[in-house]
Amino acid sequence: MGTTEARARSWINARLATMDPSSGHPYGALEGPHALRTRHGRIEAVMPMRDWRPASGEEAVDAAGRWMTPGLVDCHTHLVWGGDRAGEFERRLAGASYAEIAAGGGGIRATVRATRATSEEELARTAAERLAPLLAEGLTTVEIKSGYGLTLADELKQLRAARRVASLVTVRATTTLLAAHAVPPEFEGRADDYVSHVCDAILPAAAAEGLADAVDVFCERIAFSPEQCARVFGRARELGLPVKGHMEQLSNLGGSRLAASHGALSADHVEYLDEAGVEALAHAGTCAVLLPGAFYFLRETQRPPVEALRRAGVPMAVATDLNPGTSPFASLRLAANMACVLFGLTVEEAFAAITREAARALGLAGRRGVLAGGADADLALWSVPHPNALVYEPMAPRLWQRVLGGEIVA
Amino acid sequence: MGTTEARARSWINARLATMDPSSGHPYGALEGPHALRTRHGRIEAVMPMRDWRPASGEEAVDAAGRWMTPGLVDCHTHLVWGGDRAGEFERRLAGASYAEIAAGGGGIRATVRATRATSEEELARTAAERLAPLLAEGLTTVEIKSGYGLTLADELKQLRAARRVASLVTVRATTTLLAAHAVPPEFEGRADDYVSHVCDAILPAAAAEGLADAVDVFCERIAFSPEQCARVFGRARELGLPVKGHMEQLSNLGGSRLAASHGALSADHVEYLDEAGVEALAHAGTCAVLLPGAFYFLRETQRPPVEALRRAGVPMAVATDLNPGTSPFASLRLAANMACVLFGLTVEEAFAAITREAARALGLAGRRGVLAGGADADLALWSVPHPNALVYEPMAPRLWQRVLGGEIVA
Ligand SMILES: [Zn+2]
Ligand SMILES: [Zn+2]
Repeated sequence: MGTTEARARSWINARLATMDPSSGHPYGALEGPHALRTRHGRIEAVMPMRDWRPASGEEAVDAAGRWMTPGLVDCHTHLVWGGDRAGEFERRLAGASYAEIAAGGGGIRATVRATRATSEEELARTAAERLAPLLAEGLTTVEIKSGYGLTLADELKQLRAARRVASLVTVRATTTLLAAHAVPPEFEGRADDYVSHVCDAILPAAAAEGLADAVDVFCERIAFSPEQCARVFGRARELGLPVKGHMEQLSNLGGSRLAASHGALSADHVEYLDEAGVEALAHAGTCAVLLPGAFYFLRETQRPPVEALRRAGVPMAVATDLNPGTSPFASLRLAANMACVLFGLTVEEAFAAITREAARALGLAGRRGVLAGGADADLALWSVPHPNALVYEPMAPRLWQRVLGGEIVA
Repeated sequence: MGTTEARARSWINARLATMDPSSGHPYGALEGPHALRTRHGRIEAVMPMRDWRPASGEEAVDAAGRWMTPGLVDCHTHLVWGGDRAGEFERRLAGASYAEIAAGGGGIRATVRATRATSEEELARTAAERLAPLLAEGLTTVEIKSGYGLTLADELKQLRAARRVASLVTVRATTTLLAAHAVPPEFEGRADDYVSHVCDAILPAAAAEGLADAVDVFCERIAFSPEQCARVFGRARELGLPVKGHMEQLSNLGGSRLAASHGALSADHVEYLDEAGVEALAHAGTCAVLLPGAFYFLRETQRPPVEALRRAGVPMAVATDLNPGTSPFASLRLAANMACVLFGLTVEEAFAAITREAARALGLAGRRGVLAGGADADLALWSVPHPNALVYEPMAPRLWQRVLGGEIVA
């Protein structure tokens, strides 16, 4: 992605939403005409137009007054899956209970069955297809979790498919091992044994192959206990992998405190997070990742404690949680809109949540999601009066250019 | 749109979701390989492949097993507007009250000011732009209301701009005069006088120019009383124009009963509709148009009485209500998803609501929104396992072909 390209490229006459909080302006906005110079795939400098002179051999792209923002970052997806659960949605709305659907082989088990039966190539291809609407709205980085394989071979297959996505479409992908997503049928009633298998076999294999950039768990009564999650976190840290978790989505088990105590990158969902959990996140610098798509889709009513998170200075990211069971919505801008409408984020918080803070939740603070010297040159240019329109009108196709590592890709 | 083209064109090897309730199958589905023949811009016949023989000179398009549905119909939009209200959304989320925003010149008055200041050409151009994501998801008919001009000249300008949209993009547009949307500043405190102006000047002028296919009102304490709406309805009927209304959105004023008593095509919003209103709609054959985008965006909690409407056999349509103040979402498939998740429609009801029943709400029952002989050949072909996926995964770009009057337009 242009990392060996020594030639500079500048975007000129742009308005910049740098998302750099040190600027002191909302959105880190630089409203007068500015230039942003890239070299070696990174942002080299940001300057007012009056200070810009073309470098030797430099290419200049005239933004003609358009807004430039960091490329969008979706920091929580389950993008790689097999099968289709639209029929389950249909039955549920027609009156079937969750128990009836599970008894009919539906729910996550249906996705696990289908994902196991699908080849790595096909998983990568369909995942890449699903990204199309996200790329069209300015995405440049996507996190992709495993968690529908739940065997050594199938978890690794899912992670390899996730890695392959970035070779099929113009995006940067980070991968997260979520073997502790559900107890697979082979271990029914033996969750501790499955956790041992995860710790002894799946985690080390994924680490050895370099397939996982982080390790995730689902801490909930219907999934894994805090003690079981702690074992996974401990093993991940031994292997040098950062951790994160699906925490406090349906109840408060203290998962976020556990995550914070392991220096987690993020605690995700957090609808049932309590004050002690908020303080633990703040103290550890762990992000709260809000996932309003699932909240909407499951008709939940317990909102995450946004005001407490804000007061405590916990970084808030927002993601799609794109998955076939509880958040089938391939729009990060819609997720940002929902974070405003349903959770009460301000528009600026929501936009930071899908750029700067989403990058932070991936351990990429300062490297992605901001327009600042040294960051990757992943950019989006927009035909909008102000970046707030991107959150306000999430379907309006306002993308003018998408830039990855300094190269124009759309 | 091919209406003078005598040559037939058939789509072959398609699965058809005819949305024809007489078929007895959910979605009016014909799952075996079928053919659909078009001629003169209309659907001539639907038949199993075994009965299909190429007509003389006929073109055959091989759908290769894909699903064909009627093109989507958005039966309630305020697509033509000037200005931008993202900043107002931003201020509201940052804590400003509606009253503060109105005092600062915001709200609908801001849109009226900007719409008056914008030329017909520019209004048409931006409206056409806003349609792009809807066309990409299979839309073939859109209803467009006035209501941001609120003077004789500006209401007519808005309707002319709406008419012009269909010459800029490949869609059929129907227009609705909504001069009784709000009391304009010139008539502040004199709503009755404004209604007289609507009845005596705006309505006859729009009718004389053939600019309005229907007449709409906003019946609410913050807008017009049932008595005032009745005057508008009476005048519209004298002029031979069908009527409809924004009814029971924020309170129950009996607007839907009023609409039914005028043989209205539809009563729209209807969150506060009571049992008497439901029965009046059922008796008159008036559609209920559900607008979940505004319900979501305004964080309303009163749901329309879907179960009562269903029991009474009231046709239910769903629309985007696309507008700059309360429903900035250019996705009819998302609206259908919201109708399921937020209002409890079944997936089949929701899909019928954006095809067959939406056409009915425009007075086009049997003519649009169904695959049946004699209907306009407005079609959508999809790469999906089943049409339920279109509602379940509203952002997934599954459109393969869009057909308007028998012509392939995308
Ligand atoms: Zn998740
Ligand atoms: Zn409306």
